[in-house]
Amino acid sequence: MTRTRTSSRRGRRNVSADTKQSAIRQLPFRAVKNPYPPFQIVSADELEAIHLASVRVLEEIGVKVQDARSLNLLKGLGADVDPETEIVKFDRALIDEVMTGLPSEFTIHARNPEKTLTVGGNNLTFATVCGPSFISDLDHGRRAGTIEDVRNFVKLAHSLNIYHHEGGAGLEPLDLPPESRHLDMMHAQLTLTDKAWHPCWLNSAKRARDCIEMGRIALGVSAEEMAERPAFIAGINTNSPLVLDSAMADGLIEMALAGQPVHVTPFTLAGAMSPATIEGSLVQQNAEVLAGVAVAQAARKGCPVFYGHFTSNVDMRSGSPAFGTPEYAKSVMVSAQLARRYGIPIRSSNTTASPVVDAQAAYESDMSCWSCVLSHVNVMMHAGGWLEGGLVCSFEKLILDAEILQSLSAMLDPLVFNEDNMGFDAMTEVGPGGHFFGAAHTLSRYKTAFYEPILSDWRNFEAWKEDGARTATERANRIWKTLLEEYEQPSIDPAVVEELDEYVTKRKEEIVANGE
Amino acid sequence: MTRTRTSSRRGRRNVSADTKQSAIRQLPFRAVKNPYPPFQIVSADELEAIHLASVRVLEEIGVKVQDARSLNLLKGLGADVDPETEIVKFDRALIDEVMTGLPSEFTIHARNPEKTLTVGGNNLTFATVCGPSFISDLDHGRRAGTIEDVRNFVKLAHSLNIYHHEGGAGLEPLDLPPESRHLDMMHAQLTLTDKAWHPCWLNSAKRARDCIEMGRIALGVSAEEMAERPAFIAGINTNSPLVLDSAMADGLIEMALAGQPVHVTPFTLAGAMSPATIEGSLVQQNAEVLAGVAVAQAARKGCPVFYGHFTSNVDMRSGSPAFGTPEYAKSVMVSAQLARRYGIPIRSSNTTASPVVDAQAAYESDMSCWSCVLSHVNVMMHAGGWLEGGLVCSFEKLILDAEILQSLSAMLDPLVFNEDNMGFDAMTEVGPGGHFFGAAHTLSRYKTAFYEPILSDWRNFEAWKEDGARTATERANRIWKTLLEEYEQPSIDPAVVEELDEYVTKRKEEIVANGE
Repeated sequence: MTRTRTSSRRGRRNVSADTKQSAIRQLPFRAVKNPYPPFQIVSADELEAIHLASVRVLEEIGVKVQDARSLNLLKGLGADVDPETEIVKFDRALIDEVMTGLPSEFTIHARNPEKTLTVGGNNLTFATVCGPSFISDLDHGRRAGTIEDVRNFVKLAHSLNIYHHEGGAGLEPLDLPPESRHLDMMHAQLTLTDKAWHPCWLNSAKRARDCIEMGRIALGVSAEEMAERPAFIAGINTNSPLVLDSAMADGLIEMALAGQPVHVTPFTLAGAMSPATIEGSLVQQNAEVLAGVAVAQAARKGCPVFYGHFTSNVDMRSGSPAFGTPEYAKSVMVSAQLARRYGIPIRSSNTTASPVVDAQAAYESDMSCWSCVLSHVNVMMHAGGWLEGGLVCSFEKLILDAEILQSLSAMLDPLVFNEDNMGFDAMTEVGPGGHFFGAAHTLSRYKTAFYEPILSDWRNFEAWKEDGARTATERANRIWKTLLEEYEQPSIDPAVVEELDEYVTKRKEEIVANGE
Repeated sequence: MTRTRTSSRRGRRNVSADTKQSAIRQLPFRAVKNPYPPFQIVSADELEAIHLASVRVLEEIGVKVQDARSLNLLKGLGADVDPETEIVKFDRALIDEVMTGLPSEFTIHARNPEKTLTVGGNNLTFATVCGPSFISDLDHGRRAGTIEDVRNFVKLAHSLNIYHHEGGAGLEPLDLPPESRHLDMMHAQLTLTDKAWHPCWLNSAKRARDCIEMGRIALGVSAEEMAERPAFIAGINTNSPLVLDSAMADGLIEMALAGQPVHVTPFTLAGAMSPATIEGSLVQQNAEVLAGVAVAQAARKGCPVFYGHFTSNVDMRSGSPAFGTPEYAKSVMVSAQLARRYGIPIRSSNTTASPVVDAQAAYESDMSCWSCVLSHVNVMMHAGGWLEGGLVCSFEKLILDAEILQSLSAMLDPLVFNEDNMGFDAMTEVGPGGHFFGAAHTLSRYKTAFYEPILSDWRNFEAWKEDGARTATERANRIWKTLLEEYEQPSIDPAVVEELDEYVTKRKEEIVANGE
């Protein structure tokens, strides 16, 4: 038992990406599980009250579905569809039917089989940010993102072992045309990392199909194989309150048809897009998730789906969105309980509203991460690099988040109270008033005894000051630069790259010709 | 139910210290309870294994007690005392006897009865830092502490409502003579805040008695009344491994005799003062706590005691202490389980090793605070202002910690799933695609809907930039200055101040004459 533990501890340390020697010490790529029961803040009765209230919303108010294909699918499912108003109402029997028999756990196949992920249960998956239009680092400040920033971000997402999943290219390359930039983003994602991916853009059927097809090429599988062995975690947002638009519906349906796990994530910012209470926002969120899952299940019964959590609130003084707040933490915890009620995995996020990588960015991200980890959120999207309410992707924040997540993952490694670890012999050897530095018990484990940080500076003040008195954010700047310098592209068959290149070229020509 | 909630929410906001109008918005002074079950990471069997291993340490290795009075007390209790080696051994029956019938909850009486505290159960008490020799702020950097810094710190501890307890004067005034500075520190504590106190120095019987006597004067009670109505939370450290020295024993015994709750806190830094495992350090910590509690109980059976947690680890590369680590979090959680096993309250701390108030300071403090809050730590010492492993007291950190603790306290306010909060009518009013800003449901609660931060900046990037692009630490600097400007001394009977002045003068004369 002791030997197993020692070796597992040794295995956890000083291993850089791809096991080559690195100047940056970090934990190895490994699955993270929360071995403790989920933290639950509402009773079974309260959970049922939320479910019933959201079913009442679907029965009496309904959801506006601005998408012909979805309206047809929902009609086929038995929902009450009004083609004039596009309002769809669901009765509770239908909701129960939709939510029955959904997969509670599934496998996401990475290009590198060692990075294949299990999603569901007590597994935690950390994915890097996606969506921002701005990039920020200490050298060049906050600026519009470019494809070079995307490529660097994906390289960093690849190099930082704590991120299990490349979460969607990191940011928008605003230097490329909007109608075809998803092709360049996917190309970067598929070739620069061998971790599993989040497709960057699902806001049209064609774009979604491009992502799926490029993923298929990268994996060297058939469409049928890919549907059986999902490779993406994909997701869409509803247009809260209670609207599903056609762009989002397209992405949802295409992913469902392709057998890729998809999360339906309402954009419920309490006080703006949902009621000015977390309780009401959770009811609305739940209604929108149920409606979205119904669309996916109508497209392909039994397809893997996630519960999507994003509920936070706006600052009622300014209207600004607030993230990583106490309200956010509570909404994560209740959402995870709801997801377990339905027997499906849940995604949430590591969020902050801070405009800069500072103490606020850390404590708001900590509020997000702790509540996700405690409540068994399965996929933490935006887990690395999110800043300023998701408007900005920050390279320094990506390193800060890596430290926060590494620490939390180490906290989840259980203590082992065996004779050797409890150290009676060491205490006998050292005795009252002695010192443990030189004890045999210490020497046998000093290299692997404790968590080693990637970012924290524990030197004394004088040593820290002489070395430049750098803040954590300044140190993070050096770390990502070192990782970029050390980056080596994971091996990929040149024929696959060629096929991807050809696909991108062909599709860009079509887009220039046809508009999409 | 709704009305109660609305009014309780209103009561939580925009109330400054002493209810006068302040430029700094903060939550009011209020008790904080954790309504959820404690987070537990070891089984009952594992907990028993720790207890039994620590009893074995006390039976077979013993504790060195470098104090004649304690040796006598322990002999009287039935321990096996070797006067030559000063080694004391305890058998398990004696330990069981010592640990039986101890108070699990007690009241700490503040000078202002509204700030009287209940300690134990699911109550959380946040106390400001004590002990550092250095003070730090953005204006003057890191420097030796002075009595003026002490006074300013106590004023801030008074002004920040989230701190329930003035934790021990904040720092050492190195401009005053060491033999009498405790008198000036206590004078500041007793006169500049009406919150309950932690006596600043217990490292001799005379100093401990000075603290008790000055507290008694400030409260205007007799010694007997004070013993029945404790006013202090006091504490001592053991000299780990397995030593109790006479200075610490003096403080412990005097506080026990005076009926003041006292914590026995081993200084177990794994790899240096305890085995290089958290498991072994917890065993040793537990043995030292049990021995210290035995001394206190021998002095006054049934006197209120705390379980003292401080176990962290050293960085095995540099020997530097590490704080706010995954190991620290786990040791907090197990220690709280041990305290509950013995039926006594527990104290821990809000720690960080960061040399500067930055993201590291925030995430290490968060690791500390989350683990304390989740595991039902009753008194969080050093909850505000601790920096650099406790060497430095930081004014900006005091504000950062206030935000972290306020947020956590708000997270512990339960959600209430009644009809009004669940907002069905609001969703009906707004409908799909609408906006909640102007809804009646929103307007009726927009002033009190959500947590309002003391430090976080949620404005958009442009507004933040135009206002000086200040980091959280820079904003914290402005906040403490505003609070100091606004500070008003809480009312105190001038006769009491005169009596305290006279006591200090008299004792300083004695100290000059007699050395103590």
